[in-house]
Amino acid sequence: MGMTMTQKILAAHAGLPEVKAGQLIEADLDLVLGNDITSPVAIHEMDKMTVDGVFDKDKIALVMDHFIPNKDIKSAEHCKCVREFACKHEITNYFDVGDMGIEHALLPEKGLTVAGDVVIGADSHTCTYGALGAFSTGVGSTDMAAGMATGKCWFKVPSAIKFELTGKPSKWVSGKDVILHIIGMIGVDGALYKSMEFTGEGIRYLSMDDRFTIANMAIEAGGKNGIFPVDEAAEAYMKEHSKRPYKIYEADEDAEYETVYTIDLAALKPTVAFPHLPENTKTIDEVGDVKIDQAVIGSCTNGRMEDLRIAAKILEGRKVAKNVRCIIIPATQKIYLQAIEEGLVQTFIKAGAVVSTPTCGPCLGGYMGILAAGERCISTTNRNFVGRMGHVDSEVYLASPAIAAASAVTGKISGPSGLE
Amino acid sequence: MGMTMTQKILAAHAGLPEVKAGQLIEADLDLVLGNDITSPVAIHEMDKMTVDGVFDKDKIALVMDHFIPNKDIKSAEHCKCVREFACKHEITNYFDVGDMGIEHALLPEKGLTVAGDVVIGADSHTCTYGALGAFSTGVGSTDMAAGMATGKCWFKVPSAIKFELTGKPSKWVSGKDVILHIIGMIGVDGALYKSMEFTGEGIRYLSMDDRFTIANMAIEAGGKNGIFPVDEAAEAYMKEHSKRPYKIYEADEDAEYETVYTIDLAALKPTVAFPHLPENTKTIDEVGDVKIDQAVIGSCTNGRMEDLRIAAKILEGRKVAKNVRCIIIPATQKIYLQAIEEGLVQTFIKAGAVVSTPTCGPCLGGYMGILAAGERCISTTNRNFVGRMGHVDSEVYLASPAIAAASAVTGKISGPSGLE
Repeated sequence: MGMTMTQKILAAHAGLPEVKAGQLIEADLDLVLGNDITSPVAIHEMDKMTVDGVFDKDKIALVMDHFIPNKDIKSAEHCKCVREFACKHEITNYFDVGDMGIEHALLPEKGLTVAGDVVIGADSHTCTYGALGAFSTGVGSTDMAAGMATGKCWFKVPSAIKFELTGKPSKWVSGKDVILHIIGMIGVDGALYKSMEFTGEGIRYLSMDDRFTIANMAIEAGGKNGIFPVDEAAEAYMKEHSKRPYKIYEADEDAEYETVYTIDLAALKPTVAFPHLPENTKTIDEVGDVKIDQAVIGSCTNGRMEDLRIAAKILEGRKVAKNVRCIIIPATQKIYLQAIEEGLVQTFIKAGAVVSTPTCGPCLGGYMGILAAGERCISTTNRNFVGRMGHVDSEVYLASPAIAAASAVTGKISGPSGLE
Repeated sequence: MGMTMTQKILAAHAGLPEVKAGQLIEADLDLVLGNDITSPVAIHEMDKMTVDGVFDKDKIALVMDHFIPNKDIKSAEHCKCVREFACKHEITNYFDVGDMGIEHALLPEKGLTVAGDVVIGADSHTCTYGALGAFSTGVGSTDMAAGMATGKCWFKVPSAIKFELTGKPSKWVSGKDVILHIIGMIGVDGALYKSMEFTGEGIRYLSMDDRFTIANMAIEAGGKNGIFPVDEAAEAYMKEHSKRPYKIYEADEDAEYETVYTIDLAALKPTVAFPHLPENTKTIDEVGDVKIDQAVIGSCTNGRMEDLRIAAKILEGRKVAKNVRCIIIPATQKIYLQAIEEGLVQTFIKAGAVVSTPTCGPCLGGYMGILAAGERCISTTNRNFVGRMGHVDSEVYLASPAIAAASAVTGKISGPSGLE
């Protein structure tokens, strides 16, 4: 029996000719990631270990992104702890206020993750780098600590679900709509501890930003990881951003999949996940009359250039509805600067939106757009659990930047058709 | 005995031919201001009154600026309360996410305060509008409530201190240096419940932004208000920003002043207020070696166009020092947009600073740059009290945008000379 893409990467990193689903292996790590929330816990765990330093100062990325510039004394103390650790161990890839961004947008942009890598990160959306053909997955802070110390991690080799993507998506259907459709179809535990392997000729119609969004939300279906084959677009992205060599792994023809879904992208419609689970999806024509108080465009899921370009296309020459707060958050400083150079930020401000410095902020109820009781937000983020963005009696609706921008203009959840 | 500028404005608004220092009067209000922290308290107070609505829906300004986009559930609930009140009473000048800014930069920019006005605001830095020749002062939320209901407020007519400004300030001496020098000279209670009346031929060398900064910090010397005569520059500012008629009041020649100080602007040096009081001033050559962790450029004191231009002049082509966080906060959306159009924001980002959406945030330890124990910040804000920007064991040093930007580059408190 052959191996899936994920299994091939894991086998190579475990020094084994072959691995099987369910097998326990120890794999070498190409990168260990932590942020300002999870790294302090990992650092305290490392302090308890009898280790002398980190395994490789170039293969650890510490990204201050959730609550910086610091939102309170606690977050300031957390960042201080990580900053001191990074200084002590001369961590090459320490990112703080200034040269920073949301971790899962930043690492590919900085060229720190490429095809064939095994990456662990103490953040659930670490699965994002599967868009580049890497195996990447979220772990707890203790695993991060062990990873920083040893450069290795234990994994149970995941089985896989194959998503065969066919057809060309229509104009307003983005990667976000694809992944919301899939989560709606299989549920938030539909891929529990499994690889979500995306294949098919439809992939060529998905931009890299679309793929990052799709891989990013694999965890929202319970997936251990999400992964795309490496095509010309992915290679071009890596050549542009990274100096690291990459290695392309292809699934064997006789690789085993627990299930195979065929999804016709041409048949998909813009999709919204209703409270309080990403699986509660409706297509835009089924949404009905849902008034909103806030629209958030950003996050590790949808804060990239294409996301901002689409939002700007809709907000250009229009105004955010009265009593709607529209908060736009470029995912990295580089994206922020490019968005200014392309005139997008100017469009947002003229439309009556605010543009924040890169932060995870509102997505996890941190700051920069917290909801009061009874308030509703349309958001391009990745989770709409109870109280995720504020009060337990608030509601979050997940959608693409196109829908979020259109909704900001109309004041209720709306499709972008006719607003381009 | 003649009247001071302040006394003349108060007399006119009390319908009296003359008032004297110490006299209790009731004056008509041209504007009543509240923000997202103080307005909810005032609204709850109004609810207890037997009044039917507000005195004038056009003469109340409610500015959501301290913690928006909302930093937590509590601030979200506060804004919701004010939003509902504004909606119910059809308040014309309600400013929320999108069309907003820090109140004391926003109101003059929107033309809501002009010469001759009497303005109360439930925020201590309401004294800012004295730069335009208005009497404006901070009040508590209960006075704000009574003001919203009746359009009137009781005042004890203040006595006055005259600051005769002469000479032309040298290149790096700004309004911030002038007011820090004055506070250093007279102390934080040096003008307690008194008008600080600025006069003299030196005023012509102070831009309107300089004057806003100086009037803004009158309260840091305990002043009831700070006020400037209305010259061509002030008239030009009002004509550009406001459609409201303004009225110029001049002090009588025989007006009484408790003290008269003559300050030679040409003799001033860039000045820094050390922790933990604005009166702890040293000139830049006396500062010594003070390493910093953070630099904040913004606030109602120094977040205007000139402030950003000066910071950009210093940061252009340079980099923020390693391990220093430089946070730049344009005071209003209009300033933000203009700063982009002039290329300043691009300069900041390229230098490794972050640019926040307008907020009071870090100034009062709200969010967007809170300090951990042992950390030091050079800041263009207005207060450096113990724990003002975070942990009680952190330190804030107050200075001009030029010094803050220069310090961000060098990593220690530094003058801008040689860095232009």
